[in-house]
Amino acid sequence: MAYFDAASAAPLHPVARQALQASLDEGWADPARLYREGRRARVLLDAAREAAAEAVGCRPDELAFTSSGTRAVHTGIAGALAGRRRIGRHLIVSAVEHSSVLHSAEVLEAAGGSVTQVAVDRGGLVDPAAYGDALRADTALACLQSANHEVGTEQPVGAVAEVCRAAGVPLLVDAAQSLGWGPVDGGWSLLTASAHKWGGPSGVGLLVVRKGVRFAAQGPVDERESGRAPGFENIPAIVAAAASLRAVRAEAAEEAVRLRELTDRIRARVPRLVPDVEVVGDPVRRLPGVVTFSCLYVDGEALLHELDREGFSVSSGSSCTSSTLTPSHVLRAMGVLSEGNVRVSLPFGAAEEDVERFLAVLPGAVSAVREKLGAPVASEVVREEDILVVDSLGKRCPIPVIELAKVIGDVPVGGLVRVLSDDEAARLDIPAWCEMRNQEYVGEEPADRGTAYVVRRAT
Amino acid sequence: MAYFDAASAAPLHPVARQALQASLDEGWADPARLYREGRRARVLLDAAREAAAEAVGCRPDELAFTSSGTRAVHTGIAGALAGRRRIGRHLIVSAVEHSSVLHSAEVLEAAGGSVTQVAVDRGGLVDPAAYGDALRADTALACLQSANHEVGTEQPVGAVAEVCRAAGVPLLVDAAQSLGWGPVDGGWSLLTASAHKWGGPSGVGLLVVRKGVRFAAQGPVDERESGRAPGFENIPAIVAAAASLRAVRAEAAEEAVRLRELTDRIRARVPRLVPDVEVVGDPVRRLPGVVTFSCLYVDGEALLHELDREGFSVSSGSSCTSSTLTPSHVLRAMGVLSEGNVRVSLPFGAAEEDVERFLAVLPGAVSAVREKLGAPVASEVVREEDILVVDSLGKRCPIPVIELAKVIGDVPVGGLVRVLSDDEAARLDIPAWCEMRNQEYVGEEPADRGTAYVVRRAT
Repeated sequence: MAYFDAASAAPLHPVARQALQASLDEGWADPARLYREGRRARVLLDAAREAAAEAVGCRPDELAFTSSGTRAVHTGIAGALAGRRRIGRHLIVSAVEHSSVLHSAEVLEAAGGSVTQVAVDRGGLVDPAAYGDALRADTALACLQSANHEVGTEQPVGAVAEVCRAAGVPLLVDAAQSLGWGPVDGGWSLLTASAHKWGGPSGVGLLVVRKGVRFAAQGPVDERESGRAPGFENIPAIVAAAASLRAVRAEAAEEAVRLRELTDRIRARVPRLVPDVEVVGDPVRRLPGVVTFSCLYVDGEALLHELDREGFSVSSGSSCTSSTLTPSHVLRAMGVLSEGNVRVSLPFGAAEEDVERFLAVLPGAVSAVREKLGAPVASEVVREEDILVVDSLGKRCPIPVIELAKVIGDVPVGGLVRVLSDDEAARLDIPAWCEMRNQEYVGEEPADRGTAYVVRRAT
Repeated sequence: MAYFDAASAAPLHPVARQALQASLDEGWADPARLYREGRRARVLLDAAREAAAEAVGCRPDELAFTSSGTRAVHTGIAGALAGRRRIGRHLIVSAVEHSSVLHSAEVLEAAGGSVTQVAVDRGGLVDPAAYGDALRADTALACLQSANHEVGTEQPVGAVAEVCRAAGVPLLVDAAQSLGWGPVDGGWSLLTASAHKWGGPSGVGLLVVRKGVRFAAQGPVDERESGRAPGFENIPAIVAAAASLRAVRAEAAEEAVRLRELTDRIRARVPRLVPDVEVVGDPVRRLPGVVTFSCLYVDGEALLHELDREGFSVSSGSSCTSSTLTPSHVLRAMGVLSEGNVRVSLPFGAAEEDVERFLAVLPGAVSAVREKLGAPVASEVVREEDILVVDSLGKRCPIPVIELAKVIGDVPVGGLVRVLSDDEAARLDIPAWCEMRNQEYVGEEPADRGTAYVVRRAT
């Protein structure tokens, strides 16, 4: 059994468990009350706030505990936008932010505001100059993650913060993936994080708003957490969150070296062990424990099941695993292959032998899935003049790409293949396949049903 | 040591602690994931939802877990209002709702909607007919607590639900104070509750939306909890909440009889043991464990300190204990004395001998506070024609009432006393004192500074 999905949720750190259990006895009462149990709860809450603030690098009164990282993002963005409503209603986000940021942006747009999505390169990295270009006179807020949750790419937060600061625009940093590894440097204005990402308990997020940043909490508020997180404070969980943040920080430098070596192994060896694999995400600027790759002609969900049977828990940004049937917006924004996508995110303390065993079973798992998919129902292949038409309508990723690969040899170099597909993932995966196979992706055209993706055989 | 503030937060029930600890190992992963740890988390979450739904008396798919009772109220009211926006933007609440309901009402008003507050009688009880009178063609939602958090009065939820149903208006019931005792009967449409009120952990609320009720969640949402509670689910706490709800329900009938007998003792004996006390709240229709009284000529905060020194943790709705310096909106709406207010709310298992010891120390504690306040700085007393004027400007509750009581004997029967005060509590406490003392409260008049409260000596 090896759990390799720390980027979703890390198992509870032993220090978090200890602190939680200890504070269940001391921290259950209302910290706003004057009696003994209330005062004890208040002392615990204050101490946790100081510890968390020290780890973040902020003042205790700048930090509020929320009920989750998602809630911290929602509250932080809404409050910062409202605080600068007179300036305007324009928001800048990167195209690879966490869904909580993008959902907040959708709410702004629905209410008549405007949003600029800053593109990323093929490694998932934003360009600080692109943030500069996106800034407008009516920009109320910019958002950037410290590191990407799906591919591990670390963003140039310091440089983007400088660009924003020069324009007088606050920057909100979603530090959910990185805060356990260290503080976020640079002149950010707001910061959010999530305790269960660093081994703290569920139910605790952080929202930091620097002094001087205009902020107007939205919706009903009460007197708790400086009016930024209404509802009874979950003090045992808050204490556990703060204690475990200190604990993981104490181990972070050493563990980062160790995990980076393990993910380097995966990055280097997976492409040698498995044919037709693309390792995605920036190879250098990345989180120590995250490595992500996509396997051509593989159904991500089927691969996850194969790996689960072998005792490995990983996640996938493939459309096949998601209930919404659209592929990961992160992979799409990077323009990389989304099919057969696997994210390995090693928790603190991940064992080297588990990583080695993962590398040992992966090739067989991929082959097994490819074998099952290798003989799909024969498609309707029609030659229209010099164009070969593949009808993949009604078939799910990765079938359209498999069918394309099967017929590309049937047209001469320079000839065209038209793949008809109504699977949203094809829009991403067919161009990505062309990139990997050095074929020319011509573009897409509307079709009677679905979309026609046109590929020219180049080699 | 006796903790008598269960209406704020109950100590963790042993079953909640057990369930929490057990599910820390099984419930930390993302229940949306397909691998083993995720599936285990999903099983726990589903089982908790079924258990909680059974206790509420609803379908599992009608129940969402939120991060607090306050959050459940905020989300429930906002979603129900938005779901019926085409009908109108009028909201009905009782005057004694929890602040989370009133804060939601304020947000509606700030956004251009309108709110009707239904008055309560001197016992804190609403009249179902008053809800009927408040209903309008544009009423989107009505809210009513199942029982009041400050005085324990149980509201006629079933009758109010019928009145609302007849008009096609959904009723949201805030069941925070009562759900541990039993399900809320009647045809309500939405229901909210808070786990730490019944001995569950902090960090879990319930939001139930009956099938067929129009509901449109506001703000950013995600795929979790039917789109009604964004952010990673806190499964260990949810499991503990559901398990402890079942556990307290199993003990509820027996424990209700026991606690009701104990609070009956307090209700009966406090007025005999302590002079000038008003026991508030409905004497019959009330929660088993809550009893509230106010002591004339007493500073609530000072009394809480005295009782804390004696080992009793209770709370107070007196203005003196609140940071905002306005007296409890509940006591104000009831028109009862707010000064020297004490709420005793017994937790499950409260010991009889602790209640007896409380009754033994209370008279001394009240006397001690009264003694300290008994010799206030002499007020400026001026006789203007037939009116005695008491200048209590700059003095806090309960001084204005103490000064009134000192001079009432100095005017003849039929004569007037004018109390000048700039303490907001005087507006409530001077009429309440008149009621208790059978004096005639004439009314208030603007004054150069503060307000003049005019009292006619009647006896």
